[in-house]
Amino acid sequence: MPKPIYVLNGPNLNLLGTREPEIYGRSTLADIEALCAAEAARHGLTIVFRQSNVEGQLVDWLQEARDKAAAVVLNAGAYSHTSVALHDAIKAIAIPVIETHLSNPASREPFRHVSTIAAAVKGVIAGFGAQSYVLAVAAAAALAQESK
Amino acid sequence: MPKPIYVLNGPNLNLLGTREPEIYGRSTLADIEALCAAEAARHGLTIVFRQSNVEGQLVDWLQEARDKAAAVVLNAGAYSHTSVALHDAIKAIAIPVIETHLSNPASREPFRHVSTIAAAVKGVIAGFGAQSYVLAVAAAAALAQESK
Amino acid sequence: MPKPIYVLNGPNLNLLGTREPEIYGRSTLADIEALCAAEAARHGLTIVFRQSNVEGQLVDWLQEARDKAAAVVLNAGAYSHTSVALHDAIKAIAIPVIETHLSNPASREPFRHVSTIAAAVKGVIAGFGAQSYVLAVAAAAALAQESK
Amino acid sequence: MPKPIYVLNGPNLNLLGTREPEIYGRSTLADIEALCAAEAARHGLTIVFRQSNVEGQLVDWLQEARDKAAAVVLNAGAYSHTSVALHDAIKAIAIPVIETHLSNPASREPFRHVSTIAAAVKGVIAGFGAQSYVLAVAAAAALAQESK
Amino acid sequence: MPKPIYVLNGPNLNLLGTREPEIYGRSTLADIEALCAAEAARHGLTIVFRQSNVEGQLVDWLQEARDKAAAVVLNAGAYSHTSVALHDAIKAIAIPVIETHLSNPASREPFRHVSTIAAAVKGVIAGFGAQSYVLAVAAAAALAQESK
Amino acid sequence: MPKPIYVLNGPNLNLLGTREPEIYGRSTLADIEALCAAEAARHGLTIVFRQSNVEGQLVDWLQEARDKAAAVVLNAGAYSHTSVALHDAIKAIAIPVIETHLSNPASREPFRHVSTIAAAVKGVIAGFGAQSYVLAVAAAAALAQESK
Amino acid sequence: MPKPIYVLNGPNLNLLGTREPEIYGRSTLADIEALCAAEAARHGLTIVFRQSNVEGQLVDWLQEARDKAAAVVLNAGAYSHTSVALHDAIKAIAIPVIETHLSNPASREPFRHVSTIAAAVKGVIAGFGAQSYVLAVAAAAALAQESK
Amino acid sequence: MPKPIYVLNGPNLNLLGTREPEIYGRSTLADIEALCAAEAARHGLTIVFRQSNVEGQLVDWLQEARDKAAAVVLNAGAYSHTSVALHDAIKAIAIPVIETHLSNPASREPFRHVSTIAAAVKGVIAGFGAQSYVLAVAAAAALAQESK
Amino acid sequence: MPKPIYVLNGPNLNLLGTREPEIYGRSTLADIEALCAAEAARHGLTIVFRQSNVEGQLVDWLQEARDKAAAVVLNAGAYSHTSVALHDAIKAIAIPVIETHLSNPASREPFRHVSTIAAAVKGVIAGFGAQSYVLAVAAAAALAQESK
Amino acid sequence: MPKPIYVLNGPNLNLLGTREPEIYGRSTLADIEALCAAEAARHGLTIVFRQSNVEGQLVDWLQEARDKAAAVVLNAGAYSHTSVALHDAIKAIAIPVIETHLSNPASREPFRHVSTIAAAVKGVIAGFGAQSYVLAVAAAAALAQESK
Amino acid sequence: MPKPIYVLNGPNLNLLGTREPEIYGRSTLADIEALCAAEAARHGLTIVFRQSNVEGQLVDWLQEARDKAAAVVLNAGAYSHTSVALHDAIKAIAIPVIETHLSNPASREPFRHVSTIAAAVKGVIAGFGAQSYVLAVAAAAALAQESK
Amino acid sequence: MPKPIYVLNGPNLNLLGTREPEIYGRSTLADIEALCAAEAARHGLTIVFRQSNVEGQLVDWLQEARDKAAAVVLNAGAYSHTSVALHDAIKAIAIPVIETHLSNPASREPFRHVSTIAAAVKGVIAGFGAQSYVLAVAAAAALAQESK
Repeated sequence: MPKPIYVLNGPNLNLLGTREPEIYGRSTLADIEALCAAEAARHGLTIVFRQSNVEGQLVDWLQEARDKAAAVVLNAGAYSHTSVALHDAIKAIAIPVIETHLSNPASREPFRHVSTIAAAVKGVIAGFGAQSYVLAVAAAAALAQESK
Repeated sequence: MPKPIYVLNGPNLNLLGTREPEIYGRSTLADIEALCAAEAARHGLTIVFRQSNVEGQLVDWLQEARDKAAAVVLNAGAYSHTSVALHDAIKAIAIPVIETHLSNPASREPFRHVSTIAAAVKGVIAGFGAQSYVLAVAAAAALAQESK
Repeated sequence: MPKPIYVLNGPNLNLLGTREPEIYGRSTLADIEALCAAEAARHGLTIVFRQSNVEGQLVDWLQEARDKAAAVVLNAGAYSHTSVALHDAIKAIAIPVIETHLSNPASREPFRHVSTIAAAVKGVIAGFGAQSYVLAVAAAAALAQESK
Repeated sequence: MPKPIYVLNGPNLNLLGTREPEIYGRSTLADIEALCAAEAARHGLTIVFRQSNVEGQLVDWLQEARDKAAAVVLNAGAYSHTSVALHDAIKAIAIPVIETHLSNPASREPFRHVSTIAAAVKGVIAGFGAQSYVLAVAAAAALAQESK
Repeated sequence: MPKPIYVLNGPNLNLLGTREPEIYGRSTLADIEALCAAEAARHGLTIVFRQSNVEGQLVDWLQEARDKAAAVVLNAGAYSHTSVALHDAIKAIAIPVIETHLSNPASREPFRHVSTIAAAVKGVIAGFGAQSYVLAVAAAAALAQESK
Repeated sequence: MPKPIYVLNGPNLNLLGTREPEIYGRSTLADIEALCAAEAARHGLTIVFRQSNVEGQLVDWLQEARDKAAAVVLNAGAYSHTSVALHDAIKAIAIPVIETHLSNPASREPFRHVSTIAAAVKGVIAGFGAQSYVLAVAAAAALAQESK
Repeated sequence: MPKPIYVLNGPNLNLLGTREPEIYGRSTLADIEALCAAEAARHGLTIVFRQSNVEGQLVDWLQEARDKAAAVVLNAGAYSHTSVALHDAIKAIAIPVIETHLSNPASREPFRHVSTIAAAVKGVIAGFGAQSYVLAVAAAAALAQESK
Repeated sequence: MPKPIYVLNGPNLNLLGTREPEIYGRSTLADIEALCAAEAARHGLTIVFRQSNVEGQLVDWLQEARDKAAAVVLNAGAYSHTSVALHDAIKAIAIPVIETHLSNPASREPFRHVSTIAAAVKGVIAGFGAQSYVLAVAAAAALAQESK
Repeated sequence: MPKPIYVLNGPNLNLLGTREPEIYGRSTLADIEALCAAEAARHGLTIVFRQSNVEGQLVDWLQEARDKAAAVVLNAGAYSHTSVALHDAIKAIAIPVIETHLSNPASREPFRHVSTIAAAVKGVIAGFGAQSYVLAVAAAAALAQESK
Repeated sequence: MPKPIYVLNGPNLNLLGTREPEIYGRSTLADIEALCAAEAARHGLTIVFRQSNVEGQLVDWLQEARDKAAAVVLNAGAYSHTSVALHDAIKAIAIPVIETHLSNPASREPFRHVSTIAAAVKGVIAGFGAQSYVLAVAAAAALAQESK
Repeated sequence: MPKPIYVLNGPNLNLLGTREPEIYGRSTLADIEALCAAEAARHGLTIVFRQSNVEGQLVDWLQEARDKAAAVVLNAGAYSHTSVALHDAIKAIAIPVIETHLSNPASREPFRHVSTIAAAVKGVIAGFGAQSYVLAVAAAAALAQESK
Repeated sequence: MPKPIYVLNGPNLNLLGTREPEIYGRSTLADIEALCAAEAARHGLTIVFRQSNVEGQLVDWLQEARDKAAAVVLNAGAYSHTSVALHDAIKAIAIPVIETHLSNPASREPFRHVSTIAAAVKGVIAGFGAQSYVLAVAAAAALAQESK
């Protein structure tokens, strides 16, 4: 059976749907999980979908993904802009990681223009709302296929 | 019954009273909790008082405060200078958050002159030692009253 | 008889109530003077309340306060962001000075994120509108009490 | 009949397949055009596919797209890092523009970490080689559908 | 009985031996623990050896070391470059802390040239692979001896 | 009777005609006043023309202009490059203010390339010697006409 | 017969009237051409009015103006912020060039605060909408008169 | 009769002798005036000695010195670090101006390392306490002699 | 027959001989072409000599040179300081490219100290007037010889 | 016979023991030489110990060490912060060089936080007073052993 | 017999009188030596006067001065802007050192605005040509007197 | 007899041929001397060829060249990036100096992109290996010819 795609979510993403909806949209994280699962299914794959507010927990999950996942879709939220620990974790695992954002950080506050993880990931998809996740799962599926 | 004021404390504040007393004073965190409770009582309010060294735990508590608290007094300690996750959590909740510091960061090392959360909070009170908390609870009580 | 608290106001604060009320609120400077006097009275103190658009005038008043006041509440307005002369005047006098702002400078334009006086003051209270002054007078009263 | 998706390519992309293949891969621009057309066809759409080394020509085409296209997939190549003119052209047209890159600029030289157009686009897809275009056409199709 | 030396390890160091061995070498963390214990034994001392991916957990352990350890050898990994919380924890405890790195951060990416903890530690040993730890334990033993 | 145009001049402009004539030309401030009055008369308007070396005095006059003037032509001289107080005064008054310079600051020393007031004014006219004032009065007259 | 004034327009100005009218106003470029011609006629002069999205084309026209024009009014649009080629072209021709903008760049995004051409021009007129052009033509006429 | 040397003093220098004596020494401004007068007398000259906290007042006095003084000794205090107006006034007058400081700004806070007036003065004498003034008067006398 | 050396010239170089001769000398571009042809002939080679004000045109010619030329002498003029597109074109072609300047950019304005193409070229020759081209053709001839 | 370890000392280290002992300790350079010789002897090695105030002399000695030494312990003193020549010399020789400091530069003035040689050395040991040398000799001995 | 004043001169000062006389004047170094000796004699003192182009030689002489001189007048020339070694040597010796310059560095190129030694010296005298040395010797004499 | 060309070489260039040959090539300094002598002979000139690791020695030789040489070819090595003393020496001598490098500094580490001497030299030749010297001698010969 093929390995699943890990979809990992960082701080405050559990509030989606109610938090600043003019920026983040009205989909809840559960809605996004359903969209991701459906897209993965289209490619004959499953997903593991998680959220944490703790930077070190996200590091743990990335390490776990090294053996258990085919690829990772990572919306690290605020930690995208400050975490070297996530950068190192991504570098340390061989599987492809895709940085994903609901909004387009480049059109927001200057501190969101910096990504400490972007130099470590395979690629970036940002700005399409919940659709960013669907595209990222599609990309992850293609990469997982490729590396077989 | 009115909602309490959350008083949240970040890393190393559990050492208060023994840690560099020439900067942070000789009051312990328990002393400060008592002062805050007394000030809240003057306004007919109660407090929930907590401390953690984990950034993500502070994010969790801020999220919890969204429904359970009237306002938050937040001394994020070292995370005041680095955390975008706390910034986002503050933005994500509707209730007022007051940034509080025992010492005056502007008269200390340059890396303490930067606050990643200051742009997200309602206001700032800093430099008055334990009295900073008392003033912040008073401010929180006034804001809670106002927004009723 | 105890020395009064000096409440000093910098440039353009004489326009309060009519100037950009969405930022500065609708209280006039006279309203604020009344609030400060009332708060001081609660602590058995009086206030001296002044405003000037001239940086050097504010320096003169700070120097005068050295002997005549118990403490100073200073809203230096625009000079907060550019004046080394006020910084030096604050350093030159032994009594506590409290930096006060109606709005929260950290959530406004970048040039307001810099305070040339913050490193010299005892503490900062900002972001609570007219209530910032009331809290500052309370803080000043406590400090005046303490240093007796 | 629905409007086509414009796929616009900037300087040196006409050399694809032979230019630094370890960075840009071995697909030619013609290969990519075929992939884009196929993906668009999956969504019942057609594409207009062009390349130019002249910044002003790309501005002209973006302006033309305003009336003639449903959305734009734009790989502005080197002009992504220097062109304010393209930024302004994107802002000036109402239809969605998707910034696309074959490689991941964040893992290359520092001058490629800056994008002068990112703040103006709807979203970004980068790092997946020729697959970046396919994902971008899929995203464009979804956006075109949405805005009908 | 003399207090032990705490050897604390930050994020991703649990992957040692398999993670980018051209940078970090082929020793596992267990190998390093054995080397440290042997070196400590040469000085008549024992060690407590731990690893965590959570910044706040490392803060907790540093606080614990205040009473329980003679000195700390700290390889904070990625948190060396971003954590003010660890800086404050080091400052808050009286015992010597030695910053340790397997590789030489100065010959790697620019973001690793910054250490937020270096200004707080007693000294730094970096660049000698697993031998960095052995030297650090030797240094810690000498310092522990000295401060008796 | 229509309100006059205020023409306000900052520090050292009283020396015009004798001060560094290769930069500032040979017209005196009285010559410029005459040119301004003539241009205003062409539009059926009068002027109030003043000069001060004191920043706070210029703030006072801008505040006075709020009620008494149709528009302001402001050559703030050196204060153009340092004054936040003038920035705030311009923002605080509803009438249009036009930043004016005799020389072209961009072709002079780097510290003159910064204008702290430019973000607050309606527009800028610089580099045409005494003619800058004439153009500015013309612009002010047009704006005054428009806002009636 | 006197030489005409060249009025040269840079990228995206052909969209005027429909492009972000809250910033650029509702006048079309044809409207502005008419205003310029009328103002020139008031001074007994004619204009040559052109627009291009191509930086090098604007360089060509500036070179052409050296012999054929009395002065140049240049709204280089986005190229104002990035073009050294235009800077050099302006320096290379002896006739006066006036930098013109519809909006006030200093009150917009930070990247518009930089002008690479400002150090080379005679003067600047910005912020008055279509009226900026009229004032610039008037200034150009005065300068052309002067240099005869 | 020869023209006097103007000795001009900026903000907070009226507090000398009582203000932070560990930095500024115990001489009062009157003591310094006496020392300056004595040194001038040694060269057959007199002095005019003044102090003001108002930047514009210092500009006025520099302008006055143009005709009335042989040279100026200027301790602009805090305005040394921020005032372009004083820079321009110094440039505008033909007589030599000597920047003088009691302490050595380069060994104090970073904001005192910047002098906005240093590029305009003839020379600098700093760090010798009251003796700085004496040396500056000697230098001024020599320059006055020279330019006769 | 050996391939020619391409000598490519950027914006405003067509004005040579008349444009700021104190910086660029009195040789015209035709004079320089003759010097280059003569030097090439000394090495048994021919040249192709072109000039354009359009950045994209220079990119086109560099691409053309990939197959048709033995080496390129490139004086990109103002685009040397801003063009990433030229950088990429140089990287994309295998033949050596020599950056050439008439003047020494390091002794001119700061914006000329930056070269966006220098990191991509084989070598640099600058500061010798028309002789820079002759030396560059000699260097190109040697490199062409070497790579045979 | 094995090659010795070179221990090279830069400017002002000849003053050790008398120079700012609160920073550099009370050991003289002769004391340190004795400690180094003893530690080397423990590893069956000898040392060559030298000091110079001349940057170029240190370069000469590093070059000499290429053939004559097994490894180098280098305390370059002030040249650690400014010398590219030493950086290049270290790169040019194949044997390991260990950067050593008595104090911890990161806890001193900002200009000591920069090391121009750190990117070229094998590793760094700093902050342990004379003990830094002992640890560095131990590290050098281990490296010399390893590379045999 | 009192100790002499050391007058130490850095690189290129041996060329004085012939080197760029519009900046450095026409006095030779021998002329300056004579002036210094005469001024010292006025105070009953002698001088030791030396020049070297070698940074390390100047360090040697400063160290020698520690025991042999009453004070040092140091014109470190170009090394004033780059040498940390001289900074450290000045800090390491107890006697007063006076930084001296013929010209006023602040009115020259930006790289001369930085002094790496200014934070270490007692005071600075600059801008008075050969007279700078005379004033510095006078200051040194006064300081030597004071510290007896 | 014509004056010779001085060819001066800075630190570590004595190691050429063995030092990092992938960057600096396999020619030794003696090989380069021979090439330079041959090229000079082609122009009827001789050379003086020297190398030193000491900055001050290079300053001495530049000063010597003032009278003895027709021109200087200077590869200052690492001192190119840090030495103001060499900058000043070049400025102080009237003869042309040509900055020369074997490699292309712009394609190496960022600290090599800065040249402190480039603003003082006549021109620069870099990136052609040993051939850089030959071209530089040719350029020097032409300049020497010209200035006769």
